Amino acid sequence: MWHYEPPLRDMRYVIEDVLGLPAQWARLPAFAELDADTAQQVLGEAAKFARDVLAPTNAGGDLEGCHWADGEVLTPKGFREAYRAFVDAGWPALACAPEHGGQGLPQVLNAALFEMLVAANHAWTMYPGLLHGAYECLHAHASPELKAAYLGKVVSGEWLATMCLTEAQAGSDLGLLKSRAEPQADGSFRLHGNKIFISGGEHDLTDNIVHLVLARLPDAPVGSKGISLFVAPKFLPDGSRNALRCDGIEKKMGIKGSATCVMSLEGATGWLVGEPNRGLAAMFAMMNSARLHVAMQGLAHAENAHQNALRYAQERLQSRAAVRPEGAPAASADPIVMHPALRRTLLRQRVLVEGARLVAYETAHSLDVSEQSPDAAERALAHDDVSLLTPVLKAFFTDNGFQIASDALQVFGGHGYIHDWGIEQCVRDSRIAMIYEGTNQIQAIDLLVRKVVPDGGLKFGALLDRLAAGLPPGGLHSPAAREAIAALREATLQTASAARADPELAWRVADDFLRAAGLVLIVQAWARAAEVSSRTEFAGDAFHRAKRDTAQHCFAYVLPELGHALRMVAAGREALAYLPASG
Amino acid sequence: MWHYEPPLRDMRYVIEDVLGLPAQWARLPAFAELDADTAQQVLGEAAKFARDVLAPTNAGGDLEGCHWADGEVLTPKGFREAYRAFVDAGWPALACAPEHGGQGLPQVLNAALFEMLVAANHAWTMYPGLLHGAYECLHAHASPELKAAYLGKVVSGEWLATMCLTEAQAGSDLGLLKSRAEPQADGSFRLHGNKIFISGGEHDLTDNIVHLVLARLPDAPVGSKGISLFVAPKFLPDGSRNALRCDGIEKKMGIKGSATCVMSLEGATGWLVGEPNRGLAAMFAMMNSARLHVAMQGLAHAENAHQNALRYAQERLQSRAAVRPEGAPAASADPIVMHPALRRTLLRQRVLVEGARLVAYETAHSLDVSEQSPDAAERALAHDDVSLLTPVLKAFFTDNGFQIASDALQVFGGHGYIHDWGIEQCVRDSRIAMIYEGTNQIQAIDLLVRKVVPDGGLKFGALLDRLAAGLPPGGLHSPAAREAIAALREATLQTASAARADPELAWRVADDFLRAAGLVLIVQAWARAAEVSSRTEFAGDAFHRAKRDTAQHCFAYVLPELGHALRMVAAGREALAYLPASG
Repeated sequence: MWHYEPPLRDMRYVIEDVLGLPAQWARLPAFAELDADTAQQVLGEAAKFARDVLAPTNAGGDLEGCHWADGEVLTPKGFREAYRAFVDAGWPALACAPEHGGQGLPQVLNAALFEMLVAANHAWTMYPGLLHGAYECLHAHASPELKAAYLGKVVSGEWLATMCLTEAQAGSDLGLLKSRAEPQADGSFRLHGNKIFISGGEHDLTDNIVHLVLARLPDAPVGSKGISLFVAPKFLPDGSRNALRCDGIEKKMGIKGSATCVMSLEGATGWLVGEPNRGLAAMFAMMNSARLHVAMQGLAHAENAHQNALRYAQERLQSRAAVRPEGAPAASADPIVMHPALRRTLLRQRVLVEGARLVAYETAHSLDVSEQSPDAAERALAHDDVSLLTPVLKAFFTDNGFQIASDALQVFGGHGYIHDWGIEQCVRDSRIAMIYEGTNQIQAIDLLVRKVVPDGGLKFGALLDRLAAGLPPGGLHSPAAREAIAALREATLQTASAARADPELAWRVADDFLRAAGLVLIVQAWARAAEVSSRTEFAGDAFHRAKRDTAQHCFAYVLPELGHALRMVAAGREALAYLPASG
Repeated sequence: MWHYEPPLRDMRYVIEDVLGLPAQWARLPAFAELDADTAQQVLGEAAKFARDVLAPTNAGGDLEGCHWADGEVLTPKGFREAYRAFVDAGWPALACAPEHGGQGLPQVLNAALFEMLVAANHAWTMYPGLLHGAYECLHAHASPELKAAYLGKVVSGEWLATMCLTEAQAGSDLGLLKSRAEPQADGSFRLHGNKIFISGGEHDLTDNIVHLVLARLPDAPVGSKGISLFVAPKFLPDGSRNALRCDGIEKKMGIKGSATCVMSLEGATGWLVGEPNRGLAAMFAMMNSARLHVAMQGLAHAENAHQNALRYAQERLQSRAAVRPEGAPAASADPIVMHPALRRTLLRQRVLVEGARLVAYETAHSLDVSEQSPDAAERALAHDDVSLLTPVLKAFFTDNGFQIASDALQVFGGHGYIHDWGIEQCVRDSRIAMIYEGTNQIQAIDLLVRKVVPDGGLKFGALLDRLAAGLPPGGLHSPAAREAIAALREATLQTASAARADPELAWRVADDFLRAAGLVLIVQAWARAAEVSSRTEFAGDAFHRAKRDTAQHCFAYVLPELGHALRMVAAGREALAYLPASG
């Protein structure tokens, strides 16, 4: 049956053996006192919480779902207790600044924490999942008075937060939103409007809820340049109930323990955060970390699905393998992990799961460098990298998370379709991450149309050069990885150049281009991991032998997917028909 | 909101314009009196039943599910009434022989009927979905007494049927099954054992249920050669309750209105069907039509998903398109069907949906030819084709059905994740078809390992030659289709030859090989459809222009997927690591 075992050994391998982060932290004043053992201790405690406290609430939360009545929402059995334990242990404050009550630990540890939380219970993790984003948004844009009122409560997790963006007619296109804000004499605003898809818009986990709301000021410009950001708490500072309410919750495919709320603002009191009409910019300031957070969800589901499929395949006996490994005991049926089709599935999962972990943690570290490096040029470079990598990780990891979950379900055969085994829930829960925080198609447009083509591929090309420079000289797989990077570099230049004459080209090929970029990151990661695991000191260790086998699989069986993605980018030169615009 | 409109226009296009089936029926004595208008009338009535009677029970059946108590199962609201209407209209008898009360219509019309039923309500269709298979099995193997007792009831649909195969330890590997049959003095048997995953093992739709049960006779050989087939009704001919019962139903990812039963046989009375120890062979006699039936499920979900995604994309306004089509009205936001990423998604769906319909109906017609042609050589050739095509259609169509459903969900953005819009149910319901009736991995092994490699690719090569010969001479896309067929032919010969030295090779590359075969069928179908829709008489017709556009998309954007599948077949020459056989 379903079980989640946090992959601490692999996390340590990535953080210490491959990325050497402890030495990196020593270079950053904010983390200079953090050593490898402390980091491992933090992750070890997080693993215990995820496995022992949170995971037991996962299947029940899915079956029970949330309960709405009369504007109030009850979360599933066990969610409140798990949240209390989470706050008591100080987890919300992990990566917040010490001056606001945070622990000031690196983003990479926060990423690993959230990887474990999502794998253990994605629905539950939706509630604290927005805390760090709300913290960053208020930290960067709120007035000192608002900071004093809200920041501490958010850092501690005593109050949870929401992002009230979407409206029925305004999803991917927030420029269409209609909620309005009326200025009041006391400097506050009255908010009116209807919001949908508000995660944690109402619940019973905390005494108050801090809503970040997008709305229009009177006479604001039309479109996305006329949107302002407000903070509107469920309970006002005087203790009275604010004029906003939850009108219902959605019946969803998955993450059923997360209350997805329809909210109405009926003259709710709110205060402006940041500049008038600059609300989208304030929101987008926290977008990189929010999207990396969703990327971790893709990785979390992939890890969860893979480890459960592997355990099942090791236990389930059906038919004899086509060719049995040397030394396999005589048997009328073999564990299905021996069957070639399942080895293909499971090895490909490993390539994408463990490779993604390396890429994700390295990117989270770049986020730390972009914020904490004493060297301005290094901060700027890291910022550029994160900006380019964020949409790739969000879309590529979440696409893979869902596909790996579905492939894992297939390993279970008929049992995979049954709720008891947990894997079908993983498929359903993982599906949302391809949609929210900007659909994966929007991510691809963000990457290619907004960030790569405008400068002719200059910054992205420089990132690829750094990836090539990071390959181990003389590494077994370095030549193949170098060729892969060069192929993407060439496709980047060609696309950027052809896009000048064909204004739709980049839009047509954006998804394939993003997928190619994701595969290049994976390939580059495995070339490095293979080199680390080939060190003499690791020769007899099964963990490192598995790493070498997985790297081999990456280059023999997964690398061809890059060739296909690039050929699809080339195919995108062909015209693309319009379908009829009405039925 | 969700709506299913049976694609009668496309069905007619395939049956009449492309395949010219009415002229083919005239050559087969069994269907000599069937004309195009009668066939259209049958499909028109089926469409009304599917759209107006069945589809309204789909969403509610998913939310309500089945109810089990004390061995009895209640189906969701409306299922009984829909089943009564189905039986009263004579639909179960559509493709059964007239001498047993059937209507004697071609399999191709039965395939179209079931395409519509599944699209309207997959869960409900599970109940009558096994009727035709049970009919074929009893028709081919049962004694005259058993036929007299059961065949008429099954043909009319008055009694429903099950296939009691799977046991907890015996799924893909039926050789491991343990249920046993004790011979009785009166020629009957007492059946003992436990079965799982029995679709419709218990329900309230019919007064009696006819179970086809696999079990072992005393002293039967071990493995799959010691399995016999029995018929065991819920109520015995004397009206008493047989000693078998439903111990529970499964909570599943989808098709929740279908009761998936745990059954116990507690000395149930049964009668042998066919020869002792030849039960698997008797079951497999109906496997081609059962697997084609599942292939139609993949097509049904793909059609359902595509048409709903297209309607949503035509109505939903978000952002302006990158490049707007000529004549598009001024607007601050365009229908999302204009956005390139969604045109890619929707056009690819059309290629795979409409191409699959052509391939499926042609294969169903081959099944008719294999049974009804007066020419023995033609029957044998058609039988070979069906035998080779069945696993391809089962796996390729159901893989596509799920992927197209998930891609359609993405078109809906956040709304796709909400139950109200119907598309997330389509994703969940479609997932099972990749698993049952032999997982898609088993289909791939059936194709390559069992049917292609053993004769060195001879029969499969001959099928490919017939596909090439069927291309329209001088057709716009014929050269590209011919090249695609030739590439698969070459890969077939190379794989069959290399498999002699590498006994695991065919197992490693089976999934990719099957996918390549599926793509070649689609490509060949579109080369023909494009030629038909390019006829002068169709020049001004929007339906045929869309066909030409879709064919263009097939060759520009989908054909490269074949190249990738074939490169993956080549990549399969590389060694494939074993994973540890225990945790």
